[in-house]
Amino acid sequence: MLSERIERLRPSPIRRILAVADRPGMVSFAGGLPATETLPSWSASVEPSVLQYGPSQGDPELREAVSAQLTALGLDAPADRVMILSGSQQGIDLAAKLLIDAGTPTAVESPTYLAALQVFRLYGARLVGLDQVGHGGARLAYAIPTFANPTGHCATPAERDALAAACLASGTVLFEDDPYRDLAYDPLPATPIAARIRGGSWIYQGSFSKTFAPGLRLGFLAASEDLFTPLVMLKESVDLHSSRLSQRIVLDAIESPGWPARLTGLVDFYRGRRDQFAAALDRHFAGLAEWETPPGGLFFWLRLPSPIDTRTLLDESLRRGVAFMPGEEFYPGEPEVGHLRLNFSHAAPADVDRGLATLADLLREQAA
Amino acid sequence: MLSERIERLRPSPIRRILAVADRPGMVSFAGGLPATETLPSWSASVEPSVLQYGPSQGDPELREAVSAQLTALGLDAPADRVMILSGSQQGIDLAAKLLIDAGTPTAVESPTYLAALQVFRLYGARLVGLDQVGHGGARLAYAIPTFANPTGHCATPAERDALAAACLASGTVLFEDDPYRDLAYDPLPATPIAARIRGGSWIYQGSFSKTFAPGLRLGFLAASEDLFTPLVMLKESVDLHSSRLSQRIVLDAIESPGWPARLTGLVDFYRGRRDQFAAALDRHFAGLAEWETPPGGLFFWLRLPSPIDTRTLLDESLRRGVAFMPGEEFYPGEPEVGHLRLNFSHAAPADVDRGLATLADLLREQAA
Repeated sequence: MLSERIERLRPSPIRRILAVADRPGMVSFAGGLPATETLPSWSASVEPSVLQYGPSQGDPELREAVSAQLTALGLDAPADRVMILSGSQQGIDLAAKLLIDAGTPTAVESPTYLAALQVFRLYGARLVGLDQVGHGGARLAYAIPTFANPTGHCATPAERDALAAACLASGTVLFEDDPYRDLAYDPLPATPIAARIRGGSWIYQGSFSKTFAPGLRLGFLAASEDLFTPLVMLKESVDLHSSRLSQRIVLDAIESPGWPARLTGLVDFYRGRRDQFAAALDRHFAGLAEWETPPGGLFFWLRLPSPIDTRTLLDESLRRGVAFMPGEEFYPGEPEVGHLRLNFSHAAPADVDRGLATLADLLREQAA
Repeated sequence: MLSERIERLRPSPIRRILAVADRPGMVSFAGGLPATETLPSWSASVEPSVLQYGPSQGDPELREAVSAQLTALGLDAPADRVMILSGSQQGIDLAAKLLIDAGTPTAVESPTYLAALQVFRLYGARLVGLDQVGHGGARLAYAIPTFANPTGHCATPAERDALAAACLASGTVLFEDDPYRDLAYDPLPATPIAARIRGGSWIYQGSFSKTFAPGLRLGFLAASEDLFTPLVMLKESVDLHSSRLSQRIVLDAIESPGWPARLTGLVDFYRGRRDQFAAALDRHFAGLAEWETPPGGLFFWLRLPSPIDTRTLLDESLRRGVAFMPGEEFYPGEPEVGHLRLNFSHAAPADVDRGLATLADLLREQAA
C-alpha cells in the first residue's frame, strides 16, 4: 500500500524518450540537452575540506556570487536569501512542498514545463490559468517568462508588470523559473518579474545546467523573507545540502576571468545552431507547420495546421530514428493537439537536416 | 499561506548546532562528521560527457558496482533495482514520499536518527514502536540495525530475523538504513534484515559519506520490485538525477585496487579514535554516566544516572566551547531524558580530552 500521492504519479515522457534517444543513429530533438561540445573540460585537485559536510543553504562564497548576479538583475536577493539547489528541478519540488496541498489552486502557463506540471500534480495541485491570479484564485503562480519552455515566448515588460501586480494584489506567491535567461540570441530580455513585486512573496530560481554543465546538478534560488527559512529547512530534509564539489567547480568557473567570454561564445554557438535549425525547418516544414524563431532558450515550438495528436506519431518517429517531444504533454488541462517541441541545441547540424526530413515525411504521410 | 505540512516542519537541532560547531576553538561531538584527515584528496580530468544530463536511476557502471556489493551481502539487488541517491538523506525523503500520508502508522526504533523522524513527521506519519509491526500496525518499519544512530546498537541475527518475519507477516515495508556497516571495529555485523525477507517489500540504503566523502552527497538504495519503479519516478521529480561527477569519482574510487586497503585503514583509524575516546570517557565520566563501547559507527551514547534534560545543558556547553547532541532529540515520542550522543570520529584526540573534561565539569555542577 503506497501513499495517496502515488496515485497521481505519472512516468515522465521526457525520461522515456531520453532512454531511447541516445541509441546509435538516433537524432534527438526531444530533450533540453546542451550541445556536448559546449561542456567545459575541467581538471583540478580538490582539497579534502571541500569533501566534508557543508551548510544546507550552500557554500557562502557561491551564495555571494549568485547574490551579486541576481542583485544586478534588480532582485532583492542578498546572499542570506540565496540557496544553492541540486539543480532547478529541486527548486520546483521544494516550492511545491512548501505551498501545495491536495486541492491547492496553482496557476500555470498553458503550455508549460511538463516536469513542473508533474510535480505540482504529485502534490495534488488544482491547476488553473495564470489569468486566475488577479482574482485571488491561486496560492502560487508558476511562470517561465523568459524564453518559456516549450514555446520560447519572452514576456514583454507590460506582461511582466501585469503578473507582478496581480500577484501582489491577491497575495499569490510568484514562482519564477528562469533557466534560459543567459541564452538570449536577440536583444536582452526584460528584468525578472520577481524584481517587480517588492513587498510580496516570491521565489526566483535559475540554473547552471544551461550555461555550464547539467551533470553537476546545480541551480539556485532566492526568495522573499517569509519563504526563505522554511525552504532551507525543506532543503535540509531532502538532501542535507548540494554537492560541495559541484559548488566549488561552479564557483571557480563563474569567478574566472574567462566566464563572460564563455557566455558570449555559448550564445554565439547556440544562435548559430538556432539559425541553422530555422533554415532546415524552412527547407522541410514549409506548409507543414508554423513556428516563430525563438529569441532565446533551446526550443522551437511547431503548430500543425491539422489537429494531429503528436503523441500518436512518436513511436513511428522513434522507429525511424528521430526523437521529439509531443506538445500535448505540456498542457495543464485538456491539450491543444498538434504541437511539437523541437530542441535545437543538441543535435549536430548534419543530423538536424536528416532528422527534420524524416519527421516531415512522417507528417506528410499522416496528413495524406 | 503555506501548505499544511509546513506546520509540522521543525528546525533541525543538528544544523543549529553544526552552525556554531565550527567556530574556532569549539570541540564538537555533535555531528556525525568523518575525520577530515580521512577524506580523500582527489585530482583528475573530467571528460565533458560526464557533465551532460544522465539517467535518473544513476550511471550504469556505478549501479553495477553497488549491485555487486549488495549481492555479496545477501540482498536480492540486481543492478536494475539499484538507484543512486544524492546522499542517503534523499532516500529517507523518497521512501516517506512513497509511503507516508497524514496519519500513516510508521514504526521506528526509540531512539532513532533524528533527521528521519523529522522527515516522517513532515509527511504526517503517526510514529509507533517497532513492536507494532507484527500486528499489522504499521505501513513501514524504519530501522538502523547495524550500529544504530544514536545508540550504536548492532542487532543480533535473532533480532533481525524477528523483524523480517514481522514485516513479512503483516505486509509492512521494511526500510533498512545501513550507512555505518563498513565502520565495524569488532567482528563483522550480521547480514542485512532486507536479505532475510525475500518475497516481501523492502528498501535498503547505504551511503558513501562515511567511507569516502560526504561533500559529494552520494548514496544508494535497492528495493523490492513493487517499490523500485515509483521510487525512480519520485527521484526524477526531485532532482532528475544525482551529480554525475560525484558518481564518476565514487566509481573510480570503489573500483580502484586501493579501495579495500582504504576501508581497512579507515576502520583502523576510527577504531583507534573510538578506543582513545573510551579511555577519555573513563578518565572524565566515571560515576557521571554509563555507556557501552560501540562495536561500530560513529557515536557513544551516554546515560546519565539522574534524569537531566540535556537540551537544557546545550547553551552553556556551547558557551564553554563544546558541542554535543542532546539525546532527547532522538525520541519519536516523549523523550527519555538524560542521554547524550557523542561523536568520536571528528574531534582530534587532544580536543577530545579537553572537551570531555569541560562537559564532565558542567554535568557535575548541574548535579550539585
